[in-house]
Amino acid sequence: MTGHLEKNDFPVSQVRRYLEPGPIVLVSSKWAGRTNIMTLGWHTILEFSPSLVGCMISGSNHSHPMIRNSGECVINLPTTALIDAVVGIGNTSGAEIDKFAKFDLTADKASDVEAPLIRECHASFECRLHDDILVEKYNFFIFEVVKAHVAAIPAYPKTLHYTGDGVFMVSGKVINRRSQFRPEML
Amino acid sequence: MTGHLEKNDFPVSQVRRYLEPGPIVLVSSKWAGRTNIMTLGWHTILEFSPSLVGCMISGSNHSHPMIRNSGECVINLPTTALIDAVVGIGNTSGAEIDKFAKFDLTADKASDVEAPLIRECHASFECRLHDDILVEKYNFFIFEVVKAHVAAIPAYPKTLHYTGDGVFMVSGKVINRRSQFRPEML
Repeated sequence: MTGHLEKNDFPVSQVRRYLEPGPIVLVSSKWAGRTNIMTLGWHTILEFSPSLVGCMISGSNHSHPMIRNSGECVINLPTTALIDAVVGIGNTSGAEIDKFAKFDLTADKASDVEAPLIRECHASFECRLHDDILVEKYNFFIFEVVKAHVAAIPAYPKTLHYTGDGVFMVSGKVINRRSQFRPEML
Repeated sequence: MTGHLEKNDFPVSQVRRYLEPGPIVLVSSKWAGRTNIMTLGWHTILEFSPSLVGCMISGSNHSHPMIRNSGECVINLPTTALIDAVVGIGNTSGAEIDKFAKFDLTADKASDVEAPLIRECHASFECRLHDDILVEKYNFFIFEVVKAHVAAIPAYPKTLHYTGDGVFMVSGKVINRRSQFRPEML
């Protein structure tokens, strides 16, 4: 287990640092007194400021109406230590079980939304629904990240990236090419 | 260099295999007799069938009007062997240079679109603009992948995942958890 990671506030305009590499995330929600968690691999950064993230959340998912009705969620970043929880959460339904209890995860209180933070994750991004224009047609939610919490170490957490068919890629080495960038591109 | 990779046809409904892990891609386009290439990290799968991919392509990018006007592009998957081209393409403008020539890349003829395939990439996905409803407001293009070409080997190419600030993460080891999945989730 990752233990109880101490988190620091993190600038919401910089969450691309963690989401642009394309990790599987755990999306937590709360509605009508109940919480839920789902796995999600279909997301993209859309803007730095406001800090916008687009997520395709299938209508068949128990979390879909919870997030739509509450207009909120938390996008949490699990590491390889949580792979059993990630797989388990993706293969069960919140209609049948309490995912926090079943997968031994801790629901911490968020600061700006009612949906809970998942303490065991490396980072948690509190989100409010910013635009639902594509929800009906594509199940595509545009969220604004309103508060970000990130563990100080490690600088580059080992994240999980889903390829389909039950196979995950784990994030590998880091290459710094900063010296080849034009300053305005950084 | 990666050399001239032999590509096979690949099912368009399965391109999540390569895009869901979140790699940097090279988007090639053609309009009014000129080609261009841009780097892109802000993309997400939206649907298996039709095979939909959403891409945030900033309006300040030279490729934006080319793709909007032609209604086409090709999403190409570079590997670590192409990191200098990836960085170079992201730090120059097609308004000033011919990126194929400058970065020693080969424009191959696509089968269903006018935009060129980049031969040196591991995979190329021919795309047609499917829905432009969010282009004005968010620079978000929804494409349908109409034809996919993928190199047979390696099964898991070393892809580049951008974290901002000039730093890339390289795809690492693969973990197979297929046995823990419910059949309908595979």
